[in-house]
Amino acid sequence: MMEAKLISSLQNPLVKKTLLLKEKARERKKTGRFVVEGRREMELAQKGGYVLETVFFCTEVFAETGIDSFLGNPQTELVQLTQQVYEKIAYRETTEGILAIAKSKSHALDGIQFKNKSPLILVAEAPEKPGNVGALLRTADAAALDAVLIANPKSDLYNPNIIRSSVGCVFTNTIGMGSTEEIINFLKANHVTIYCAALSASKNYVECNFKPATAIVVGTEATGLTEDWLQNSNQNVIIPMQGEIDSMNVSVSAAILIFEAKRQRGF
Amino acid sequence: MMEAKLISSLQNPLVKKTLLLKEKARERKKTGRFVVEGRREMELAQKGGYVLETVFFCTEVFAETGIDSFLGNPQTELVQLTQQVYEKIAYRETTEGILAIAKSKSHALDGIQFKNKSPLILVAEAPEKPGNVGALLRTADAAALDAVLIANPKSDLYNPNIIRSSVGCVFTNTIGMGSTEEIINFLKANHVTIYCAALSASKNYVECNFKPATAIVVGTEATGLTEDWLQNSNQNVIIPMQGEIDSMNVSVSAAILIFEAKRQRGF
Repeated sequence: MMEAKLISSLQNPLVKKTLLLKEKARERKKTGRFVVEGRREMELAQKGGYVLETVFFCTEVFAETGIDSFLGNPQTELVQLTQQVYEKIAYRETTEGILAIAKSKSHALDGIQFKNKSPLILVAEAPEKPGNVGALLRTADAAALDAVLIANPKSDLYNPNIIRSSVGCVFTNTIGMGSTEEIINFLKANHVTIYCAALSASKNYVECNFKPATAIVVGTEATGLTEDWLQNSNQNVIIPMQGEIDSMNVSVSAAILIFEAKRQRGF
Repeated sequence: MMEAKLISSLQNPLVKKTLLLKEKARERKKTGRFVVEGRREMELAQKGGYVLETVFFCTEVFAETGIDSFLGNPQTELVQLTQQVYEKIAYRETTEGILAIAKSKSHALDGIQFKNKSPLILVAEAPEKPGNVGALLRTADAAALDAVLIANPKSDLYNPNIIRSSVGCVFTNTIGMGSTEEIINFLKANHVTIYCAALSASKNYVECNFKPATAIVVGTEATGLTEDWLQNSNQNVIIPMQGEIDSMNVSVSAAILIFEAKRQRGF
């Protein structure tokens, strides 16, 4: 195994930097770096083409077998942490003993290329909760969507709660971010039909044809989609609800729409 | 408006009892009572036939208009709380200023009668997180399922996190609870086809016929369904997944299966 430097002080600058990256979106944005924790998440990040710059491990917690798989890149530095330092950096409930600083990727729309002639895309406008973003990304991975686009994002993608609730699917999806206007223009330029999940002038989702290039657009549970989306919608869609409550969780609604599209496309 | 008694002491026995009911499943079970908070949740509880025994409000927070709608039952006692006492009893983030003690219902299986000759039923075995139970109940309400059955429940139904995450759908659904064995027997006695969400010997869910009496059975994300279910399954079903990750959130998977059944049944 590669030689590892040992850090035992909470005052160490690298420890302080890592804490900042975990806690502050501003720091992540400024440096283009973020923290990824846990073996599976790190594996998915690598698989998704992310460079792990610094890999931290704590021998008291981490079974070292397999650490080499994270050290293939010559840029990667290996750092051993004492248990005290590790516990300070790590998420409370995690006891895997391994985490890393990774380089962010660009999520500019102009970097997205579709292999599929009729892409299936999910658009989420201003999702409020990291847990909802995580659940959407998990569904998007399972459905092998061509892209997930986040319009007017409320937080950066590398928020630890998003990484965690997506169980690493933040690394496996093609994700674009931009303003609502930019995303609408992008979809139009790519001749993608825009289906907005909305209550008015809506068609039952099972009567819609999701086989051509399709974007399924969902808003927030509280306020739905903004006017900009509704004005640019090719067809509003609705999931018929027959209970006392007229709303489902946004990640649940999105999944129902996405998998109806998958069904129509024969998976 | 009805005369209200005022409580201003945290030492008041009714305040202490309410706190216990909120925090302890044991206390809820022993007394057959629970706490429901918020106007909408209380409305749904009443609509679902629950008796609100004590209605608490705090004038500093609650706009009194409409409180009469909770006082129709002659058994109902109205209690005003000072802000200090209210804040102690209420959930941190809620600022609605109204809550109640309500009487639990029986969730015995033998109390469940189906109006529909071909009921559509969701079964969840040992769901771990209150948030997952809440999301399942929300979807079940939207789909107007004939029943939700919880096998080997890990918590009582009136856990505040379940009430909250279900946005009150814990009161709008027909819910039965029992052991896995009891529920399997119940389904068989009612000639309900058992579809288990499982990975082995499974059929693509869109190729299954969910029109006859159907139970969709889901297990936990971590360990899936127990052998008992798999041995009594009429057909295992699978949602084809094509990503890096081989699992979705349990409430998302359940929703996809339920709404495919709804589609086949023409809603």
